[in-house]
Amino acid sequence: MNYRLLSRYLGVLALLIGGFMLLSLLWAFPETGFRTDELLRPHRFEYRGFGALFLSTIISWGVGGLLYFFGAGAPKGIYRREAMAMVGLGWALATVLGALPYLFSGACDRPAVRENQVDASLYIAAPGWSIWRRWVAAPRLAPTEQRIVRALVDAGPVGCSANSLAAFSAVHGADSIIEDIASRPEWHGILLMPGEHAEATPSDRASHYRLAWVPMGIIGALFESQSGFSTTGATVFTNLNDSWLVPHCILFWRASTHLLGGLGIIVLFVVILGQGSAGKALMRAEMPGPTKEGNTARMQHTAWMFGGIYLVLNAVLAILLMLMGVSLFDALCHSFATMATGGFSTYNLSVAHFQGLPGINADAIEYLITFFMFLAGANFLLLYLLACGLYRIVWTDLEFRVYGLILLVLTVIIATTGLVLNDPGFDSVSDAVRISLFQTVSVQTTTGFATADFDQWNNFSRALLLLTMFIGGCSGSTAGGIKVIRYVLLVKILGMELEHSYRPRVVRVLRIGGKPIDDQELRRNILVYFAVLVSIFVVSWLIVVAVEPGSTWDGAEGNKLIDSASAVIASLNNIGPGLGVCGAAQNFSNFCDINKLLFIFLMMIGRLEIFAVLVLFLPGFWRDS
Amino acid sequence: MNYRLLSRYLGVLALLIGGFMLLSLLWAFPETGFRTDELLRPHRFEYRGFGALFLSTIISWGVGGLLYFFGAGAPKGIYRREAMAMVGLGWALATVLGALPYLFSGACDRPAVRENQVDASLYIAAPGWSIWRRWVAAPRLAPTEQRIVRALVDAGPVGCSANSLAAFSAVHGADSIIEDIASRPEWHGILLMPGEHAEATPSDRASHYRLAWVPMGIIGALFESQSGFSTTGATVFTNLNDSWLVPHCILFWRASTHLLGGLGIIVLFVVILGQGSAGKALMRAEMPGPTKEGNTARMQHTAWMFGGIYLVLNAVLAILLMLMGVSLFDALCHSFATMATGGFSTYNLSVAHFQGLPGINADAIEYLITFFMFLAGANFLLLYLLACGLYRIVWTDLEFRVYGLILLVLTVIIATTGLVLNDPGFDSVSDAVRISLFQTVSVQTTTGFATADFDQWNNFSRALLLLTMFIGGCSGSTAGGIKVIRYVLLVKILGMELEHSYRPRVVRVLRIGGKPIDDQELRRNILVYFAVLVSIFVVSWLIVVAVEPGSTWDGAEGNKLIDSASAVIASLNNIGPGLGVCGAAQNFSNFCDINKLLFIFLMMIGRLEIFAVLVLFLPGFWRDS
Repeated sequence: MNYRLLSRYLGVLALLIGGFMLLSLLWAFPETGFRTDELLRPHRFEYRGFGALFLSTIISWGVGGLLYFFGAGAPKGIYRREAMAMVGLGWALATVLGALPYLFSGACDRPAVRENQVDASLYIAAPGWSIWRRWVAAPRLAPTEQRIVRALVDAGPVGCSANSLAAFSAVHGADSIIEDIASRPEWHGILLMPGEHAEATPSDRASHYRLAWVPMGIIGALFESQSGFSTTGATVFTNLNDSWLVPHCILFWRASTHLLGGLGIIVLFVVILGQGSAGKALMRAEMPGPTKEGNTARMQHTAWMFGGIYLVLNAVLAILLMLMGVSLFDALCHSFATMATGGFSTYNLSVAHFQGLPGINADAIEYLITFFMFLAGANFLLLYLLACGLYRIVWTDLEFRVYGLILLVLTVIIATTGLVLNDPGFDSVSDAVRISLFQTVSVQTTTGFATADFDQWNNFSRALLLLTMFIGGCSGSTAGGIKVIRYVLLVKILGMELEHSYRPRVVRVLRIGGKPIDDQELRRNILVYFAVLVSIFVVSWLIVVAVEPGSTWDGAEGNKLIDSASAVIASLNNIGPGLGVCGAAQNFSNFCDINKLLFIFLMMIGRLEIFAVLVLFLPGFWRDS
Repeated sequence: MNYRLLSRYLGVLALLIGGFMLLSLLWAFPETGFRTDELLRPHRFEYRGFGALFLSTIISWGVGGLLYFFGAGAPKGIYRREAMAMVGLGWALATVLGALPYLFSGACDRPAVRENQVDASLYIAAPGWSIWRRWVAAPRLAPTEQRIVRALVDAGPVGCSANSLAAFSAVHGADSIIEDIASRPEWHGILLMPGEHAEATPSDRASHYRLAWVPMGIIGALFESQSGFSTTGATVFTNLNDSWLVPHCILFWRASTHLLGGLGIIVLFVVILGQGSAGKALMRAEMPGPTKEGNTARMQHTAWMFGGIYLVLNAVLAILLMLMGVSLFDALCHSFATMATGGFSTYNLSVAHFQGLPGINADAIEYLITFFMFLAGANFLLLYLLACGLYRIVWTDLEFRVYGLILLVLTVIIATTGLVLNDPGFDSVSDAVRISLFQTVSVQTTTGFATADFDQWNNFSRALLLLTMFIGGCSGSTAGGIKVIRYVLLVKILGMELEHSYRPRVVRVLRIGGKPIDDQELRRNILVYFAVLVSIFVVSWLIVVAVEPGSTWDGAEGNKLIDSASAVIASLNNIGPGLGVCGAAQNFSNFCDINKLLFIFLMMIGRLEIFAVLVLFLPGFWRDS
C-alpha cells in the first residue's frame, strides 16, 4: 500500500473542501441569505455561522497541507487497493471536515427539557465552543423528559405555547424576558409549568420545566455531514425554520455538501486535476452501478460530461425556481438537493412549505421539482445523448424505460389506493396525482423531499414506498439505492435459472437491449451485490432494534420493528425519511447516538460501492502480500 | 412430457394416501382417541369423523384408480421434467385429498357472530354436507362482528362468559338450553347481550348476538392439509380442545399428514415401490438442500435409511412420552409433529397445555420434546453414522456445529434479554432457560410448537425469532427453512468475493470441512436460491398487505406490516406461528381467503425445491421442444 501517495491525494481533497466552504460565507450576509418568506423581515449578519465556516476552512486547509506535505515526493502509480482506500478514507475525511461548520456554529438540533430548575432564567443557545460541553449539554433524554418534549413540541408549530406564556406572565407580572419570548414566534427557550393554567406560586417555580434548544453534538454533526455528502438528506435538525438555531450560511453549507456529494467528490477530483489512470481507478471504486467501461481518455471525458450536465441542470433549475418567485438562497439550496437526489430542504415542511406562501404557485414548483428529480434519477449519459439530439435513444434504452414504467405504475397505484381509502391529502384527483407523483419520484430517485406525511397513508402505500426505497434510480445518475439496471439483470438471470432447472442443456446468453453481455462474472456480481445488501440490512436492523431503547417510541406513533427497518433502509439507500419516528414529519434526532453512528456507516456504504467501505475494516486489505 | 406415466404415478400416490387415511379410523373410538386430560371423561364414538375419513378413503382410492387406469401401459423412462411435474402435482394432489376429511367431518374452525337474531335458538355445529353451504355459512366477518367476537373470545378460556349466561338465565328464568350451556365449559353456541349485566326485556332479544362455531370451508381445509403435509404447523382451528368441534380421529389425521409430509411422500414412494432411477430423479426434486449425490443404489439406500431413522425416532419419542404419563393419542400426535418438525398439537396452548395437568412433569416433557426437535433438525445421515458408533463425526461436521452454535447463542441471548427486560414467563433463571431453549429450537427447526406467547416478549427477541425463522435446520433433515449449510456457503462465498474485490488475481477454492467443492455452479445456485426466496418474500408481503382488510386488526394487538411479514415468513419457511394476529396465541383463521390461498402456495414452495413449484406455472415447462 502506497501510504504516502494516499496521503497526498487526501491532502488535495481536504484543500478542495476547505475552498468550497468559503463559498458558503457569502450567505451569512442579510442581503443574500434569506428565505422566500423572509423577504420583508429584518436580518442581521450571522457572526457565528461566518466564524464557524471560516475556522473550518482554516482547519481543512491545515489538515490538507499537512497531508500533502507528508505525501510529497511519493512514488507514482495508483492501483486498485490504493484507489479503494482513497475513496473510503477520502469520504470519511470529507465527512469529518464537513461536520466542523455545524459544530463550530453551535447550530441547535433538538430541544431538551430540564426539570426542577430552581433558577428560572432562560437558556439561550450558547455559542458553546467547548466540545466537552456539547457532549455534556446534550445527553440522552429520559423517558419522562422525552414525553414532555413531545407534548410541548406538538403544542405549536415550533413547539411554542403562547397561551401558557401569557398566563404565566399574567400571574407573575410583566416579566420582560417572558413577554419578549411570547411575542415572537421564533423563540429559543421557553418556561412552562406542569399544569398550564394552574395558579403559580413562588414554590411552583421549583418544579418548572425548562425547554431549551441544544447545540449539536459531534455525532449529530457527523450525521448531518455524511447525510449531505452521501446525498441521503436525513436530518437531525428538529427546527430548520429558525435562523437563530441554524444560520443561513450553515444551511447553505448543508446544501453544498449535496452538490459535492452528488457530483462525487472524486469525479470532481478527476475533472479538476486530470488524473489519468488514477482517476479511472478512483471512479470505478466510487461510482456505483454494475457497468463501467471505456479507456482512460473516455473515462475523463465521461467525468467532464457528467459534471457539465450536472452543473447546467443545477443552474437551470435554480433559475426556473427564481422565476417562480423563490429567493436566490432557497432556489440554490433546493436545486442542489434536487439534482444530487439529496433532499435537504431549508424548511421543516420540506417542499410543502411553499404551499403556504402568498404569490407563489406551489403546485407548479412541486411539478417542476418532480421533473428535475426525474432527470436526476436518469442516466446522465442518456441525458447527454438527448442533448446531442439523439431522441430515439430514450425509447430504446431498457433501463430508462423500466425506470419510467415503475414510476408510472407506482404513482397510479398510490394515487388510486389513496383516493379509495381516503388518505389524508388525497382530497381530489388532481391533488392525488400531484402528491403521489411527487412522493413516488422523490422516493424512487432517493431524493427524500416530502410534500405530504406519507406515514399517515394506508399501510399498502407505506409498504410500497418502503420497498420502492430499495429500487433507486438509473445507473450513471446521482441517485442512490440498488439501481434499476440491477433489477433488470436480476430478473433476467432468475428467469434463465428457472429455465435451466428443467432444461439443463439449454444455454442462453444474457442480453441487455439486444446486446449480449458475455461476462460470466457479472451474473455472479449482481447476485453477490443483492446478498451483501440484504445481509447488511438484516444485521443493521437487529442492531438498531437491540440498541435503541423503547423510550424512543414513548408518546410517539410508530412500531419499533417497522420504524427501525425503515431507518436502516432509508439510510442504506440514501433516501432520507423513513416511517414512524424517522418519518417525513419527524427526523433522525430521535435515535440514540450509537444508532446514529450506524446510520452514518450505512449512508457511506449506500453511496459508495459496498465493498469499497467494507474492505477498510479488513486487516488483509492493508497488508502487502 | 410423458403424461400417462405421470398419471400412473399420481394414481399410486392417491391410493397410498387413501390407505393411510384408514389408520386414522382407529381413533374415532372412545377407547383409543382420548387426550391426556380426558382420561376420566365420558366419550362417544365419533360418527362424523369416522364417516368423513371413510368417505375420503373411498374418494382417494377412486381418484387413484382412475389415474392409474389412465396411465396403464405408459412408456417407461422418467426424466427431470417428469420428476419435477410429479413432485409438484403429487404434492398438490395430496393437499386436495388430505383436505377431504376436514371438509366432510364438518370440523369447525372459527366462531362467527350473527347480530339482531329474532330467533334466539342456539346454533349447533351442523354436519353440513353441502359444500355450497360451507361457503355461504362462513362468510368474512364484518369489522363490527370481528370486534365482538374478539371481545367474547377474550372473555374466557374458550370464549365462554359464564357470568353473563347466569345473569341472562336469572332474568329470563330457567331456560334449559342456556343453563345447559352455562354448566359445561366446552360449549358450542352462546347467546350474549350487548351489555352483559344489563336488564334484559323481551324486546332486547331482538338485538342479541349469537356466537356460533362455523364448519370449515374449502380453503380452510386446504390450508390445514397443506400445512400438515408441508410440516408447517400453521392452523386455522381456533379451538382444538373441544372434540365436538374437531373430532379426535380428524386430529389424528392432521398429525398423520405431518408424518407423511416429514418423510416426504415421495421418499416413502421410493422406499415402498423401489423405483430405481425414477426414484432418484424424484428425490432430487423433492428433498430440499444444496448437496445431493450418489448413484441409484445409494440413493435408495439413503431413502431407506432416512425412513428407518425417522420412524424409529417417532416410536421412541412416543414411548417416552407415554412413560411420562401422556396418553397414547397425544403421544403419537406430538411425536409425529415433533419428528416432522411440523408443530400441530392437540391443544390450543400447544405443548404448554401439559403445564396445567396433574401428575405430569411438564418441564421434563418440554425438555424431551426440545431434544427430539433438535434431533429432527439435524442431518439424518449424521444420526445414522452416530447410530453406527461414529461419534467423532458430530464434532467434525461443520453444518452440525454451526447448527448447534446458533441454537446455543440464540438461547443465551433470548434468555438474558428476557430476564433483564422482565418479559412475561421469565420469572426465574430456570424458567428463562427452559422457555427460551424450547422456543429457539422450535423456531429454528421450523417446528413451531409454543410453550410461551413469544409475541409478548421484547422487540429484540421478537425480531431475533423472526430472523431465526429464515435459518432452518440442517440439510437432510425434516426441517424447513433455508438450511444452515446454505448460510455456511453464503458466508464463505461472500468472504471470497470481498477478497476478490481488492485482490482480483487471487483464486480460492470453496471448501466445506476441508473438502474442496469444485462445482462452480453451486456458488451461483446458492446465490440464486437466496435471491428467489427474498423476491418471493417481498412480493408475497406486498400482496398480503394489499389484500388483507384493515379490519383484521380491529381490536387486535399487532401491526399490519409486521404481522403480514411474519405470516409470509412463517409459511414460506414452514414454521407455523408468526407474530401478532398469527402469533403463538393466535392462528391463521384471522386472514382472508385470498391470503390463505397465498399461504398454501408459500408452504408448498417452502417444503419443495422452490423451482419445482414455480416451473408448474410456466407454459414452456409443459411444452416439448
